[in-house]
Formats: sequence, C-alpha cells, structure tokens
Amino acid sequence: MKKLLLLSSVLCLVATPAHAKEGMFTPDQLPEIAKDLRKTGLKLNPKSLTDLTAFPMGAVISLGGCTASFVSPQGLVVTNHHCVRGSVQFNSTKENNYLENGFLAKTMADELPAAPGSRIYVTLKVDDVTDTVTAGLDADMSGRERYDAIDAAKKSLIKACEADAGHRCQVPAFHGGLQYKLIKRLEIKDVRLTYAPADAIGKYGGDIDNWIWPRHTGDFAFYRAYVAPDGSSADFAKENIPFTPAHTLKVSAAGLDDGDFVMAAGYPGSTSRYARLGEVENTFEWLYPSFVTLMEDWIATIEATAPEGSDARIKYESRLAGLNNFLKNLYGQIDGARRVDLVGRRKMREAELDTWISEDKTRAGFADAITNLDVLSEESALKRRQGFYFNNATRPQLLGAAQRLYRLAQEKTKPDSKRESGYQERDMTFFKQGMSRINRRFDADVDKAEWLMFLKTYMARPAAERVPAFDKALGLGADFDEAVISAKLDTYYSQTKLADKETRLALMDADMATLESSTDPFMKLAHALFETRMKLEEQSKDRNGRSTVLRPQYMQAIIDWQKSKGYTAYPDANSTLRITYGNVLGGSPKDGLIYEPFTRLEGILAKDTGEDPFNAPKKQLELIKAGDYGKYKLRSIGSVPVNFLTDLDSTGGNSGSATMNAKGELVGLLFDGTFESVNSDWDFDPRTTRTIHVDTRYMLWVMEKLDGADNLLNEMTIVR
Amino acid sequence: MKKLLLLSSVLCLVATPAHAKEGMFTPDQLPEIAKDLRKTGLKLNPKSLTDLTAFPMGAVISLGGCTASFVSPQGLVVTNHHCVRGSVQFNSTKENNYLENGFLAKTMADELPAAPGSRIYVTLKVDDVTDTVTAGLDADMSGRERYDAIDAAKKSLIKACEADAGHRCQVPAFHGGLQYKLIKRLEIKDVRLTYAPADAIGKYGGDIDNWIWPRHTGDFAFYRAYVAPDGSSADFAKENIPFTPAHTLKVSAAGLDDGDFVMAAGYPGSTSRYARLGEVENTFEWLYPSFVTLMEDWIATIEATAPEGSDARIKYESRLAGLNNFLKNLYGQIDGARRVDLVGRRKMREAELDTWISEDKTRAGFADAITNLDVLSEESALKRRQGFYFNNATRPQLLGAAQRLYRLAQEKTKPDSKRESGYQERDMTFFKQGMSRINRRFDADVDKAEWLMFLKTYMARPAAERVPAFDKALGLGADFDEAVISAKLDTYYSQTKLADKETRLALMDADMATLESSTDPFMKLAHALFETRMKLEEQSKDRNGRSTVLRPQYMQAIIDWQKSKGYTAYPDANSTLRITYGNVLGGSPKDGLIYEPFTRLEGILAKDTGEDPFNAPKKQLELIKAGDYGKYKLRSIGSVPVNFLTDLDSTGGNSGSATMNAKGELVGLLFDGTFESVNSDWDFDPRTTRTIHVDTRYMLWVMEKLDGADNLLNEMTIVR
Repeated sequence: MKKLLLLSSVLCLVATPAHAKEGMFTPDQLPEIAKDLRKTGLKLNPKSLTDLTAFPMGAVISLGGCTASFVSPQGLVVTNHHCVRGSVQFNSTKENNYLENGFLAKTMADELPAAPGSRIYVTLKVDDVTDTVTAGLDADMSGRERYDAIDAAKKSLIKACEADAGHRCQVPAFHGGLQYKLIKRLEIKDVRLTYAPADAIGKYGGDIDNWIWPRHTGDFAFYRAYVAPDGSSADFAKENIPFTPAHTLKVSAAGLDDGDFVMAAGYPGSTSRYARLGEVENTFEWLYPSFVTLMEDWIATIEATAPEGSDARIKYESRLAGLNNFLKNLYGQIDGARRVDLVGRRKMREAELDTWISEDKTRAGFADAITNLDVLSEESALKRRQGFYFNNATRPQLLGAAQRLYRLAQEKTKPDSKRESGYQERDMTFFKQGMSRINRRFDADVDKAEWLMFLKTYMARPAAERVPAFDKALGLGADFDEAVISAKLDTYYSQTKLADKETRLALMDADMATLESSTDPFMKLAHALFETRMKLEEQSKDRNGRSTVLRPQYMQAIIDWQKSKGYTAYPDANSTLRITYGNVLGGSPKDGLIYEPFTRLEGILAKDTGEDPFNAPKKQLELIKAGDYGKYKLRSIGSVPVNFLTDLDSTGGNSGSATMNAKGELVGLLFDGTFESVNSDWDFDPRTTRTIHVDTRYMLWVMEKLDGADNLLNEMTIVR
Repeated sequence: MKKLLLLSSVLCLVATPAHAKEGMFTPDQLPEIAKDLRKTGLKLNPKSLTDLTAFPMGAVISLGGCTASFVSPQGLVVTNHHCVRGSVQFNSTKENNYLENGFLAKTMADELPAAPGSRIYVTLKVDDVTDTVTAGLDADMSGRERYDAIDAAKKSLIKACEADAGHRCQVPAFHGGLQYKLIKRLEIKDVRLTYAPADAIGKYGGDIDNWIWPRHTGDFAFYRAYVAPDGSSADFAKENIPFTPAHTLKVSAAGLDDGDFVMAAGYPGSTSRYARLGEVENTFEWLYPSFVTLMEDWIATIEATAPEGSDARIKYESRLAGLNNFLKNLYGQIDGARRVDLVGRRKMREAELDTWISEDKTRAGFADAITNLDVLSEESALKRRQGFYFNNATRPQLLGAAQRLYRLAQEKTKPDSKRESGYQERDMTFFKQGMSRINRRFDADVDKAEWLMFLKTYMARPAAERVPAFDKALGLGADFDEAVISAKLDTYYSQTKLADKETRLALMDADMATLESSTDPFMKLAHALFETRMKLEEQSKDRNGRSTVLRPQYMQAIIDWQKSKGYTAYPDANSTLRITYGNVLGGSPKDGLIYEPFTRLEGILAKDTGEDPFNAPKKQLELIKAGDYGKYKLRSIGSVPVNFLTDLDSTGGNSGSATMNAKGELVGLLFDGTFESVNSDWDFDPRTTRTIHVDTRYMLWVMEKLDGADNLLNEMTIVR
C-alpha cells in the first residue's frame, strides 16, 4: 500500500508538472514565502531560518566551492566525499592508499591535515550595505568611474571588516547590483580529515554515473574544524583544539519517505535565470557550440599527446576529467535548451514583461533601461566573441603564471587598498598556492600540443579577432605553418625557467624592472601582452560599470512584476547562502520513463561489475546479499535507501548542502542534479529538474556496518 | 484514475517479478497450456491456434528472417519497416528517394517490385516426420554415418514435398533432434512494395534507439503478394494477380491498455535456453569476449580505411552498422549474464536436474547421456576455439566467393540428391544472388585492410591453431612482418578477376579441372584450402551425428523433469512458427528506474532534434503540437500510443510478428526487445525481459493523418 502511494505521487507529478519548487531564496526572503513553506510541510517557524547565527542555519558552512554542516559540538563537519577527495588524495601514498581503502581516524589524534588551502567559512553576519556601496555614485559618472567607485567602497568595507583578525569578508552583489551585502565569515584554516569512505563507496559510479539517475553514490565524508586554544582562527598546529560551533544539526536515522517535505541550505555558485534573450541566444547559439568544439579538440589533443599509461596522462587525468565533465554539461545544456524551447520561453517572458511595463506609464523608465541593457549585452557578447580565440591562445600554463607574476609586480607599485582584487595582501596565500600547484599538473609536451592546437584555431580567425601585440611577439603571420610554429614553441619550453616551482615563487618578490629585463620567453610574452590585457580589462570594467546602472533597473522591474503576480523573485545564485525547499519526488525525464524517488542497496548489487567505478567492497556486497539492513530500512521500498530525488532548486556550489527534514534534522546531503536538470541554470523546468541526495540512512549504514565508524556515530546526535 | 491503475500494475510487476511469460511454444503445444492461456486472457479457443491453416495462424507468414501477416483478401502484407527497407533502398534513386520521402502506391499499378530474392512463405502443412527421419538409424552407427542417414532422409522428404512446384519445404529438428517436422510452405516470389513510411517515421531513432526503451519507432510497412493468374507461385510478371490468402487479420483501432492480454505469432530464429553449463561458460568466458575484441578491431579497421565521406564508406555503412549492432548485442549479452548470474543459475538448474534424475533408477540413462553430451560439447568448444582465428583469416569476400565456387564445381560431380545442402539445384537462385551481391559492398582496399588485421591475430596464435595448408599457400612464416604480408596481399587484389561480377557468375558453370588450373590467386588459395575445409567439415558432421544420439536424451530428461513440475518445455527457437503470450506490461530495468508500458506522440516532439535519426517530418510535429489524435487516443495515457512493451518471449526473426489481442485481432507489430532482454536468448529473466511493439493506433494515425494512405485503410478491415 505504501508502494502504491509512492508511485501515485510520481504520477501526480506527471499529471501536474508545476509541482516542483523553483527558487534559491536568501534567508531574509523566507518570511515573504512563509505561507508556502508551511503549506509544503515545514514544521519550524520560517522566521527561524532567517537568522544565520541561530539553529539550523548557524550549522551550515562553506568550504569555498562546496557546502558543509556541523554535526557535533567538537567541530565535526559533514560534506560530500567529492568535496574532501583532494585531501584524501593529498594524504595518500602507495603504502596508505586512502582513496582505495578509505580513511577513518578512530581518535582525534589520528586525524590528518586537509590539503593545503582547505578552509571552513562560518558565516557570522550579513548586513545590507547597498547604501554605503552606492553612496558615492552619481548619474554623470562614466562606466569606468562607477566601477571604480563601487570597487573602492567594497574594498573599504572588506578592509574594515577583516580588521577583526581571522575573518574573511566579502561584498557580493544581488540582483545584478540592486543590492549589496557585507558578509563576515570566520575563516577556519586548520581543517583535518576525519573520515572518508573508500572511492568504491564515495565515488561509486564515477564519471559514468555523474549527473545520472538511478544513482548509488555514497558521496559523504567528514572533516573536523580546529582553532587556536583561545578559539581564534589559526594555521595547523598540534596544540589547536576542535572548534565549538554555535549550532549543530541532528542526524536523522528515520529519514524521509516519498513526498515528504525537504529543504537544503547551501552556497549555489551561479545561475542565469534572468538573462536577457540576447544573452541566451549568444550563449546557446554561439558560445556553447564553440565550447563544444574547443572541448572536443582539447580532449583529443591531450589524449593523443599523453597516451593512456604514460606519466603525462597521470598528470592530466584530472584536467581530462574536468574537460569531459564540462563537455557532458554542455551537451546537457544544449539538449535541455532545445527540449524546453529556452529561446521561445524567454521570448514569451520578455513579451509578458513588456506588456506589464506598458500597462503603467510610471514604468516607462524600466523600458528604457532594458533597451539599453540589451544594447550593452550585445556589445559584451561581441567582445566575448572577438576575444574567445585569443583567450584560448594564451592558455598555456606557464604563460598564465608569467602574466600573473608580472601583474603582481605592477600591482605592488600601488598601496594595498588600491590594488586589484586578487593581488592584495589578503590574497597572497592563495596566490602562492596557485604558483606552487602548477607542477603536479604540467607536462611540457602536452602543454605545447595544447598551445599549438589553440594557435591553429586562433590563426584561422578573421583579422579583426587577431591581436597585433600577440602576433608580433610570437611572430605570427597570415598563415598557420604547423612545422614553423611548432619549432618556435619548442624554444619557449626549452628556454623557460618558469616550469620550476622555486623560480616562480621567487619571482613573486621581483619588481617590474627585473621582470621587464627577464629573458624568459614566457615572461617576455607576458610583458608584450600586458598593455593589451589592461586595455581589455579597462573596457570590461567600463561595461561592468554601465551594467550597474541598467541591470538593477531591469531586476527591479522583474521583482515588481513578479510581486504583482504574487511571487517573490529570488536573486540569481552568487555563492551566498540560499535556501531551497520542496519534496522528495521522482520524475519522468522523458516520455515512457519514470525515475523512482529512492534507490536501494540492491541496486548496487545489480550495477556492480567488480571493475572501477562499479566495484563495491566485497564486504558491502555480502551485507547486501544477506539483507543486513540494520536499523536503516525504509519500509516503502523494502531496503536501505541509498540516494533520493527531490524537486529542490540547486546548482554547482550546492554540493555538500545539508538536506533537512521539516524539523531541520539532517536527512541527507545534496550532491548532484540529474542530466535533465543541467539546463535549469538558465530556465527551471519543473517537469524535469531533480536534485540528487545521499540518504543519511545509507551514510549511517555504511558507517556502522561497513567501516565501523562507531566513534563518529557516538559523537553525533542521531535521532529517529 | 486510469493512470493510477496503469502504474499500479507496473508496481505489481516490481513486487511479483515471476509474472512474465517465458515460452516460445509450437502451435501443437497450445492445448497443453490451454488453461493458462485462458487465465491470462485469451478469448479464442486455444485449440484454434494449433491449426496453421485456420484463423488466425493461417494469416501469419514468413519473409525468411522476418515475420509478416496478411491483412486483406488482396494479399496485402504488413510487417516491420526494417524488414522491407532493403526493397525501399533497392527502388530509391536520387530523384525518388523513397528512404527519405517514404513510398505509397495509391493503386496496385503503382506498386514496385521488392528487392531481388524477396520471398513470402505461407506455411501450409506441418507433419511430424520423426519416425521417417530416424527410421534408418541404429546404435552401431558412427557419428558421421548417423549424420548422413539423417541428412539423406531429410533431403528425400524435401524432394518429395517440393515435387509440388512452387513450394519450399524444410525438415527442422526440434529439441536437438528429439523431433523432426516436415514443413511445407508456398513460396511466393512476386513480392511488391506497397507502402513504407519515410525513414524519419519507420526508422525513427535509428541505431541510437536500437534495443532502447522508451522508443518511438514507426516500424511498419506493407508488401503485397502476387501469384500467377492460375494462383500458382511465379516470378514477377505484369499479368500476375494478387494472392488470395485463406485467412487475414482484422486490424484493431481500439488497441490495448496496460495489463491487457497479448500474443504474438512469429518465426524466432535461435535460442540457447537449454545449453549446458559448459556451453554457457565457453560462450561467455571465451567466445563472446573474443568476439568483442574482434568486432572492436574490425570496426576500427573499416573506419580507418574507409573514412567518413569516402565512397568506400558508403559501401561499408551497412557492414559497419551490422558489426556495431552485433557489438552492442555482445555487450548486452555479457552484461545480462553478469546481472542474472547466468553461470550460477545454470549450475543450480543442472544440480536440480541431476537430483531429479538420481531420484529414480530408471532415469540412469539420462545421466549417462548428459555426461557424454558434456564431453562432446567440450570437444566442440575446443574445435571452435582452435578454428576461430583461422576462420577469421579466411573471411576476405573474394576468398569466400572462390571457396563457394570451387565447392559448387565439386558438388556438381554428384547427383543432385547427394549434394551438400546449399549446393543443390533448389539452392541455385540464392547462390547466384549471393555471387551477384558482393560488388555493392566490396572495396579492395578495405577488404585487404580487414584481411591484414585478421592475419595479424591469426599469426599471433600458438602453432596448434595454425593451419599448415593455409600457411603454405600464403607463405606465412613464424612472425608477422606487416610490410611483407601487406605487399603479398596486394598481389591478390591486383591479380584477381573475382572482383568482377560476370566473372563470378560465369564460374558457376566451370568444372573442377578448370578451376584447379585457374591462375586467380583467390581461386588458387581456395583450392589449396579445400582438403582442410572438407576435413573440418567431416569432423563437424561426425560431432553433429553423435550429438543426435545424446542431445535428444538430454532434452527428454528436461521435458520429463519439467512435466513432473507441471510445466510444458518448449523447444529452443529454430525459425519455425511459435506462439508467445502474456500481457502489456512496463518494467523496472534497474533499481530506481521504471519503464512505462506505452510511449506517446508527445515523446517524439521531446526527442526530436531535427537531425537524423531524430528528424520527424515537420507535418507530424505540427499534428502532434495541435493534439490532432483523431480516433486513436488511448485515454489512460492521454495521447496516441506509439510503441508499447509486453512480457512476451521473442528473439531475432520475430521481427514483424503479428501482435494480437485476446480475439486474434492485430494490435501491433513486434519489432525489438529492450537492451536488458538481449540475454534472454540464454536465460529468460522475467524481471527485465520486455518485447517492444509498434501500436496499430500509431500505424493507423500515420496512415490517415500523415501519409494519406486511404486506399490501404479502406482495403483492411479495421475494427474497434
């Protein structure tokens, strides 16, 4: 009977597609949608979610690129396996291959330092600083002047905020600059690896199952946050103590059933839900198809130059995986846009907005702003098209390093507060890490083959897209003579010293004169390109400044228009904390096919081939065969649920987000979207957008039955 | 509410997997399973299905490799689009591209002759001739003698049967030789193309969707059978008249709903449901993996030698499609065997059979026979392994032609009745067609590249697998020196005359002496290999003869054992008429995923990219957008059903089978199985085996709304 309900709710979905829950709301928007939150099933007071320093939001933290949550008063942090995998890899050796075997610290003393640069950010305070940021603006300013004024205001706010040592502050724009917020976050720098199941659990299905449902990935792992004995942020040190979070999440062993209320809090990276038609068309008709060609060529070049089994291939595995991942995403984007008729729907939306604006003369200002915004967008798209192949032609890693080093020397001639973001003192830790990291992923032959491929496409472009300074410095003529150019590039790689890490690090202290007299070919090229780069940056800042006049007006129109229809317009994702809510829900990705909302342990048995990425641990297979579900069985599916689907609204950056039930207890971790959801970055299609979560019952089952992580099970508060 | 029922029956399936209907029954077995047939929903008297000359079986015919049905008294025949596509291609020109545009004869005068060799076989009579075939056998005979005795008896029966001109007879073995039947079929040689929708309907989804659900393929088309004015079988002639079938099927416009009774009658080609464990292991652990490697190498060789866009590629498209199809099938077989644990299940079955045998001393004979059968199977497998690479090394098309021509000359020295099957006078029409056909699919460079690739793998084998006569004739030493061998092969292609069709056809009349003095390199090689080939054939026939003692005993044990449990053991498929029955039924191919039983018109809209193979006609897309369902909507799915799933038991050769409802009305055409069903040739897994059909409502909708085939709609008897 339960089962019948399970499927009948899928059915309702098929019948009433508008069921799914679009919206990545900022916490302060929640009171506006309190009624729907309660109607959907939230049992907490919606207002409680708006306080980022209270339960449950106080427990939700950022890893920078991923989301995580505190699950014990001793600073235990749960997030996705794929968010901590770099740290597992960093600590792995041939003798102790934690990727293959998993890692579990049975005591705190056994914990390992996370990979360099790992951070935990605890949001402490969010203030609306729109007035401060925009105070110095006036209508007569050029785009460039506006950009500078806003930039200066933001830097000044950040500086004041970060005067409180151990904190990291930011001033992100919302609604394209309609609103600015100052976000103050505690920066925890001593992050340690506590527990990560083996790849055969945490990365089960690997790249093949990436974005795929049905899914059986145990994408969870644990860090622990450490601070100095006085409670302040500190680098790794033996005497550091576990951080005591203000709030933690209880972990549910009861979990969810089909149709239950669910919400997730996390840091989604970027969406384009309000992009104008022209931006959509430029992206889907030009940019994405160009990227597809680029990715296909790039992948083929790496595969040919770094054959399987070679040392070079090992260094490029991660880049290849990234390029393939992006390519798969592009295919999904393009296919999704076709399926939902993105262009047609955007046209319709803009027509409706135009009608609403035209209905009231006081809205005429919106119309002007939108017209000008479209002109500006077209200008930006043109610049993007013109620069696309030049940008590719300057991708070689050592050229990138040279350009950043030269820029650093130039920025250092200014006072810190005037320096470009990314080159201030507060950025130097990450800058140095960037300079150090290159060697692990660099092979001169592959880098050169990539460059040659990029140059070939660059040189096939019309004259208007060629950059004279670049052509002159590299001695590029009208035609691409592969042999000649290849020989020329060889001299770059044979003569450069930048492939050496210590050389690069030392050059972080060099002044402009030193770098300008460098005979290193990549540094000379960086110098030759500098003026061009700066000019392009100037133009970009000017467009950006002009956009801060127009886009806020466009977004205000959207907000007012939506409000007139009874909706709350949420801002596009910008890596700040958001809340999405909805229900556990299967779906129908295409005619004739239905996704069930849960997968089961038995699905692992059926998928398992014994070969990576479908090589579950033997012990796990035996436990499943024996039907040893422990306390974690979901009766309606007759097994332990492994992963589940919801209609939540998520994107990259949401990885690791706490998935909570109506009471704010942890019931899972958000870790992926289905392939049919990829296009939701542009247009949320309620019929097909589904988010994938790992179920806490599976997490607890693995911890108890497979990995014996009793210490962590005892440390967390597990509820039913 | 209907929808709820629809899905709840899928649900029942998930809960009770043993629901699906294994069994390809011979019509004479139906009375034995009459009770279950009625219980499942058949409204006709099961006995009526046993009479092949009565309704409805009298309407079901064979195209040789495909199945079809008569649907009008004027000899109108309906079958799959993919079964008539060769005839559409044969009649297509640049000006009249019927593949692209479809073909519809508005009157009989407009019909076009089908491709050469097209036949329609109407089964007239089936007699059990086991006694006659086995009359001359005695226990002392060698395997070779048994083989010859059986072969002679079969040839004699066929000769007598075919004395009735215009008929084609055969004596297939059932249950591995436990039973022989003489089947007499009218051979209709004047076959004409009446109507085939465009590829964009009939082949919608192409190779990408092959074996895939959800499916939206309009895999249907029409032939018409013609005979001489006196009603006898005749070659194409203008004065021929439409054949009047004894029975025809009514076409249902009401169709089926989820869970409804359904049956299909057709000519399934071959299954191995009763293969012994050793045969299974040899196949899945050695043969199929070897084929995978072979196919992958082969495909890569053709793709490299016949690059896309080349003339050679056009000639090899069909072979490439075939190899890729086989490779996809192999992947499905191997994956399916792993998923159902084929080896484990077969072990269990054999242990159960052994137990049953051991329970009664009178069954001891079975045990001995089975032991000996397993020894013989192992011997056959060893021979197969030893010959695998040699067989590949003799695959070049012109060598094949030379070998067949030389064999023909040799066979012609015997009286017709003593000749090897395939070389008798009755075979000469097809022999000639085979000799003619080569040129359309032959390119010397590609053929040579294939040969070189085959030789490379052959020469890498141990000495025991090398064939001295072959090595000597080709001058092959111990090592593979690509340049030397490549140069040698070049001389074969430069010197041979066998690439010329007329030369090959002329050589059909040459005697042995002429061929033995030929200087053609391929003919010389054929001559050099002849003795080896004959020796291998002798050994094979001997094993075959020995098998006819043992396998019938094994099958008798299976039959008796099954009977003791209340089941009727059906024989493995052997291209004879079979009936399978069950229900319209979705499925769950894997954990977390559900197949709905029907696809809808709207699915075409969602799939359509505008590019082959997802390029539905514009008019069709408009009709769908307009929701113009006509009289063909299935209320429970809210649209016109395109394809549907059943739990019927089918395999290659079933294509085009009449899918009938409980009253014997045509409700669809069987045309494929799902990817998860591929392995059912070895082991029917009721959880995942599903057969795919095109729905008559979609056929009628296309005919009425899209192609305006009113003449055919009027000609058929359409019922509701």
